[in-house]
Amino acid sequence: MVEKRTPLPVAEAVERVLEHAMSLGAEKVELEESYGRILAEPIIASSDVPPFDRSPYDGFAIRSVDSTGASGDNRVAFNVIDHIGAGEVSTKKLAPFEAIRIMTGAQLPEEADAVVMFEQTVESVESVTIRKPFGAVENVSLQGEDLKKNEVVIASGSFINPGTIALLATFGYSQVAVSKQPVVGILSTGTELLSVGDDLAPGKIRNSNGPMIVAQLKRMGLHCKMYGMSIDQLDESYEVVKKAAAETDCLITTGGVSVGDFDFLPAIYERLGAEVLFNKVAMRPGSVTTVAVANGRYLFGLSGNPSACFTGFELFVRPALLKMMSASKLYLPHTTARLGEDFTKANPFTRFIRALYNGDTVSPAGFNKSNAVSSIARGNALIVLPGGTRGYQSGDAVDVLLLGVEEGSDRWTL
Amino acid sequence: MVEKRTPLPVAEAVERVLEHAMSLGAEKVELEESYGRILAEPIIASSDVPPFDRSPYDGFAIRSVDSTGASGDNRVAFNVIDHIGAGEVSTKKLAPFEAIRIMTGAQLPEEADAVVMFEQTVESVESVTIRKPFGAVENVSLQGEDLKKNEVVIASGSFINPGTIALLATFGYSQVAVSKQPVVGILSTGTELLSVGDDLAPGKIRNSNGPMIVAQLKRMGLHCKMYGMSIDQLDESYEVVKKAAAETDCLITTGGVSVGDFDFLPAIYERLGAEVLFNKVAMRPGSVTTVAVANGRYLFGLSGNPSACFTGFELFVRPALLKMMSASKLYLPHTTARLGEDFTKANPFTRFIRALYNGDTVSPAGFNKSNAVSSIARGNALIVLPGGTRGYQSGDAVDVLLLGVEEGSDRWTL
Repeated sequence: MVEKRTPLPVAEAVERVLEHAMSLGAEKVELEESYGRILAEPIIASSDVPPFDRSPYDGFAIRSVDSTGASGDNRVAFNVIDHIGAGEVSTKKLAPFEAIRIMTGAQLPEEADAVVMFEQTVESVESVTIRKPFGAVENVSLQGEDLKKNEVVIASGSFINPGTIALLATFGYSQVAVSKQPVVGILSTGTELLSVGDDLAPGKIRNSNGPMIVAQLKRMGLHCKMYGMSIDQLDESYEVVKKAAAETDCLITTGGVSVGDFDFLPAIYERLGAEVLFNKVAMRPGSVTTVAVANGRYLFGLSGNPSACFTGFELFVRPALLKMMSASKLYLPHTTARLGEDFTKANPFTRFIRALYNGDTVSPAGFNKSNAVSSIARGNALIVLPGGTRGYQSGDAVDVLLLGVEEGSDRWTL
Repeated sequence: MVEKRTPLPVAEAVERVLEHAMSLGAEKVELEESYGRILAEPIIASSDVPPFDRSPYDGFAIRSVDSTGASGDNRVAFNVIDHIGAGEVSTKKLAPFEAIRIMTGAQLPEEADAVVMFEQTVESVESVTIRKPFGAVENVSLQGEDLKKNEVVIASGSFINPGTIALLATFGYSQVAVSKQPVVGILSTGTELLSVGDDLAPGKIRNSNGPMIVAQLKRMGLHCKMYGMSIDQLDESYEVVKKAAAETDCLITTGGVSVGDFDFLPAIYERLGAEVLFNKVAMRPGSVTTVAVANGRYLFGLSGNPSACFTGFELFVRPALLKMMSASKLYLPHTTARLGEDFTKANPFTRFIRALYNGDTVSPAGFNKSNAVSSIARGNALIVLPGGTRGYQSGDAVDVLLLGVEEGSDRWTL
């Protein structure tokens, strides 16, 4: 007897998963450990940036009023009364037709309101002459022009990127409040699975989904607990899943979710009293992806087929983990691109095709079946083809989800 | 006296840097440590994938020839002689009109050449009937259909992504040959610099470039040595730079490369006997970016201005480090996008504007000066506007370099 399952549209399935995300709270980490974490509180400017009017150039600080009427025929001379580098503050105050030699980043002296760049001057032993007038605050970086004190600069829920780190350093955050990271477990099921160090044997393959998901988590900056590989025996599997689910915020299993005679996860979910959010999604690959929740914790039942497993992780697990961390950007980056070759296969389900995106066109990354491994490694994106559509022609605009595009390009094309 | 410097076009400067990359050789790491590293040798298929003909569905393995002529009116019955799950191999061999119950992933039994899915059958106690004919290899995953034994699957120099890990696991690589990572040092110069934990003082700012570069390196999976902050004194700075350069493959300094009175790096490069590749680039921000080579090691002199420092790292340091690791993709990912707002400032130099790219349009990420900090944190891309061009209008197509776009989207828009 084959169980009938009703496929859920992908967007609805994602939404249903996200509704059950449990927030994990915050913790403090050292600034140098905060890259890639999610901000658990906004960054507030603790000072103006810049904190004082300063010179953006190497040159001479002057009173702009003294430069009135300066021209090539009527050079105006200034008496240089001091010399300051960045970090120094002059104790002198400019009187009329006085200048202070000033370096990039140094605070403007009292009474100065403009900076003349070296290139705009002619220097003699004691004085410097200019040949054009300068306006008030010309060549001055004004206090607070970048950011004002007490301004909310970056919202809570933002990913901490290198620029965020620069801001945190600027404002003296030696510790940063970040969202706690979920404890994620991985359990690969399947009697056919060997470990990576094993020799192949008849009917057996090496477990590639487990290591792959570890890397998918690592790409998100997350670590995980491995629960080894389980053989397809109900009682034993139940105990392993029960223990793993109790020790983690999110347990990812691979395999065992289909309608096969040894696919015990549906029965295990039932024994655990888990709420099954869905067990069929209108997508290819990965239609058997099953998501359940027990005691507020996620149980992700991904397909045992590598391409389906990979896609299920990126579409469902990734946003769920990000939501647990209260991230503001939950979804994969997306764009549109021209299809680089014909794709004629029609399908009633939404298709996610491993693909290579080069910033302009996107092409399938090779062998396109849910059990394919090669195309995961060769691709850096997923082409999304809505369900029910017929085939696509080369040159058609298609939706693209970006995955690993940050690895870059082999061409300098600017 | 101001030194005259000749600005080099950006592409030429990048090329000049890359010419001096020293290769670092390879090392072996455990598979689970290999994510994000660069492959130092190609991945060769150690077996066919799949390694045997197998069933992609839960169903019944049959001899296709027995199904000839089957129809709704003429159901063909098969005697079920065995039952195998994935990882099991049947010891039975199909005789005419015999079937073996088979689960997804299991090896096809001898003589079987087609699989009938559960949904395509009617089962009784001992037999199963079908109502349509099946062709040879219908519903069969054929040995080697994804990859053939001895095939070069992934080239040396590729970034190891989660899919690469799946392939390596599939082929039994418990250790992986990867390129050694460069030893990178960071030295921030400037008498105005405070540490992140310090209170602000007149004329001083906190060092944000150092922590920012640490994070830029971390984004590349690289660690670094910190050489603290140096005050702008020639002799002392020389000793620090000399020591740091000797201990690293690549020393990144920030500040001290301009023409100011306390910008000692040009003098230090000379004392070190370093070859200065260039000290002026036709770009904004970051025109003072200086790159030198001493004893085959890089000395990157980045601007002390945060936006210029950030850009200099991504344009010059990043590809150099990747080339030292023999990576095949050296350059930032790029695309084109429509400008989301007018950008009217003209400039003879090529401009790199911190920007926010949403997969469709790209807009400047705020305050646009080389000393800006906020726009680095708020952006995930750089708009590239060629030198010499006039202003741009909203809607114009512009080149975009992607930086941190992988952080994703706040909208599910498919």
